[in-house]
Amino acid sequence: MSFRHVTHFTVEFGDCDPAQIVFYPNFFRWCDAASRHFFVAAGVPLWSELEQTTGIIGTPLVDASARFLRPATYGDAIEVETMIDEWRGKSFVMKHTLRRAGEVLVEAQEIRIFARRHPEDSKRIQAVIAPDGIRRLCE
Amino acid sequence: MSFRHVTHFTVEFGDCDPAQIVFYPNFFRWCDAASRHFFVAAGVPLWSELEQTTGIIGTPLVDASARFLRPATYGDAIEVETMIDEWRGKSFVMKHTLRRAGEVLVEAQEIRIFARRHPEDSKRIQAVIAPDGIRRLCE
Amino acid sequence: MSFRHVTHFTVEFGDCDPAQIVFYPNFFRWCDAASRHFFVAAGVPLWSELEQTTGIIGTPLVDASARFLRPATYGDAIEVETMIDEWRGKSFVMKHTLRRAGEVLVEAQEIRIFARRHPEDSKRIQAVIAPDGIRRLCE
Amino acid sequence: MSFRHVTHFTVEFGDCDPAQIVFYPNFFRWCDAASRHFFVAAGVPLWSELEQTTGIIGTPLVDASARFLRPATYGDAIEVETMIDEWRGKSFVMKHTLRRAGEVLVEAQEIRIFARRHPEDSKRIQAVIAPDGIRRLCE
Repeated sequence: MSFRHVTHFTVEFGDCDPAQIVFYPNFFRWCDAASRHFFVAAGVPLWSELEQTTGIIGTPLVDASARFLRPATYGDAIEVETMIDEWRGKSFVMKHTLRRAGEVLVEAQEIRIFARRHPEDSKRIQAVIAPDGIRRLCE
Repeated sequence: MSFRHVTHFTVEFGDCDPAQIVFYPNFFRWCDAASRHFFVAAGVPLWSELEQTTGIIGTPLVDASARFLRPATYGDAIEVETMIDEWRGKSFVMKHTLRRAGEVLVEAQEIRIFARRHPEDSKRIQAVIAPDGIRRLCE
Repeated sequence: MSFRHVTHFTVEFGDCDPAQIVFYPNFFRWCDAASRHFFVAAGVPLWSELEQTTGIIGTPLVDASARFLRPATYGDAIEVETMIDEWRGKSFVMKHTLRRAGEVLVEAQEIRIFARRHPEDSKRIQAVIAPDGIRRLCE
Repeated sequence: MSFRHVTHFTVEFGDCDPAQIVFYPNFFRWCDAASRHFFVAAGVPLWSELEQTTGIIGTPLVDASARFLRPATYGDAIEVETMIDEWRGKSFVMKHTLRRAGEVLVEAQEIRIFARRHPEDSKRIQAVIAPDGIRRLCE
């Protein structure tokens, strides 16, 4: 059974668009934040600390997708349940289920890598195998 | 041959995160904007005008996905090439290819519906068949 | 003694810029959200409900300002203390003090109006005197 | 006569809130971007290049304010005219005038510093006197 973490958000007025519903990129913003909260809850250090010890600067995405089942609007309390669904060497699949009062609003998936700056060109990033210590914390 | 439209964006400092690269939900923000510019370029009226004549308030997403091939950073000029890849009755598939100097950065896909307010409950939205006039403009 | 309300936010990775600190417009985003939470805590109905009874669609700004005393970064827990500092007929002054662990980060002020759609042109908005009932809830 | 630069933005659907008008923090987002475009147009190198030569990582704000005179909505083309209004040793005042078709929408002011990382604590930032070379480019 995989480690799961729930992050709580409130939909704000400014998160909604003229159609009165959440502007959809904000759902990805919450998924990204939920990913970080998942790692913190699992005991993984902040990226800024990890950079000093492992060179890892974050977990940029290689793929993201979402199915939007129900709209949400401001005032809504949203729960994002996050888990790592699959480990694939240098990448891994995060699954986010966004609910309001138990009802699923959005099912999202992020495929991420552990990234460090490229040793020969600090402007580029490079995927690295998930460190064992981090992986154990998330399982 | 389907109608295509290219929208231009500049990556700003505030679009980037502490890893110095574009915070990924912004790519979806640009795709959403590119979708609207596509409709405008095709001759489809603004949603606010369409609402008065057809009740259509916009084209909310039912599904979005993206593959992130290369990162971008502030100062980069990005081109988003947009087309409708498929019509599926009440939904349609928009395809966005994001490039910097000809190089593909992101391939994104949005599945959208034409939505109007539900006649019995203005807080809910309802999918409608793409009006023929709009569809012809986009093909 | 004026009614005060504290809203809690967590600074997320995506709220920060390449300088590793909060991208400053996000502080205004939190102030705007804190304004709405203040009204909700004071017992003022959601704007969407108020629109039906009073025509009021929100409290748009006529002026906003902030002094940034200390930067914040992701992982920081921020408290926004909000109060109405002054009533000026059709406008009012909201004061927000943003703190992290008791330390003031930002002092912000918003001058807002109560707005409804212009009766003769729904694209324009119009300031109205703060309804007495709302004002009493906030004092 | 001070150097002036005009940056062009288009208001997008996702920049607007349920009141159908620009969510106000986005005006500050455009001012921040306009500040950077101003420096680029004046010939000041990108912050990422400046960091290597001068340690300067950007121009964070110590104060920001705006008067909102007219609302804007999606589809609107906005021009931001930017100039440096005053040099004050370690800080300087940027003035932004946002117009749509010549009509002033927002008058904004940012007080910024040139910042580098604190030599003894890379998590803190430190104000430095505006380098003469940069100042000459902006006058």
